Amino acid sequence: MELRRIHHVAFAHESANEAHAILSSVLGLEITATEAGAGLLERILPVGDGSVQTLEAVGPGIIERFTSRRGDALHHIAFEVDDVTDAVRELHDRGVEMIDSEPRPGGDGTLVAFINPSSTAGLLIELVQVPPR
Amino acid sequence: MELRRIHHVAFAHESANEAHAILSSVLGLEITATEAGAGLLERILPVGDGSVQTLEAVGPGIIERFTSRRGDALHHIAFEVDDVTDAVRELHDRGVEMIDSEPRPGGDGTLVAFINPSSTAGLLIELVQVPPR
Repeated sequence: MELRRIHHVAFAHESANEAHAILSSVLGLEITATEAGAGLLERILPVGDGSVQTLEAVGPGIIERFTSRRGDALHHIAFEVDDVTDAVRELHDRGVEMIDSEPRPGGDGTLVAFINPSSTAGLLIELVQVPPR
Repeated sequence: MELRRIHHVAFAHESANEAHAILSSVLGLEITATEAGAGLLERILPVGDGSVQTLEAVGPGIIERFTSRRGDALHHIAFEVDDVTDAVRELHDRGVEMIDSEPRPGGDGTLVAFINPSSTAGLLIELVQVPPR
């Protein structure tokens, strides 16, 4: 398994904190996509060949639980891998705990899997396979 | 001011949590540099054209204060800019609060400046100018 690049970095925030709008106006980034998930609104702000992702807590769910414990804070790093199915199998064989024991669809045609942070020093890591262009 | 790419993402951790060694062995990343700062040890683990930076609290200082409040957690995102002096001037002119009102030397020949997170929705952001190759 080789990590190709930082695909995105995610920042979780409460709804009252318009982080996406603030980051966009202060840093000159553009919000190119908004997607709704379970209790959250995800927004993509590209930077170079990666992006910042904001995760707005809009109802009960993992982001609201995160922000209620930690406040608005960086949530995870996502790395691109060539083949996430291979990566999950390799990590599993080496005894690494996965949140997603099988890859699942992410946004924009990607396949993703999260590693359990208990295996990575408390850092939440997502692996992302991007679709062929 | 244009952000060129994600230069690095920093994870702060207590000394007992060997995050650098764990991330290296689980993810197959190499620790290519270790640098001592005030109460901290910084390690660089390259990924693509960016890197993960681990910040180990080894004594009193900003990292120990951070981990005592928040536990081991992602600390900041650093973005590359072409000219950090210009970027700081532009941000200042637009009323953005800076931690570093003037750029200062970072590791590896860089010039850096941190934006005050009060201006960026609570997200701590570093701007980095890399030296010419």
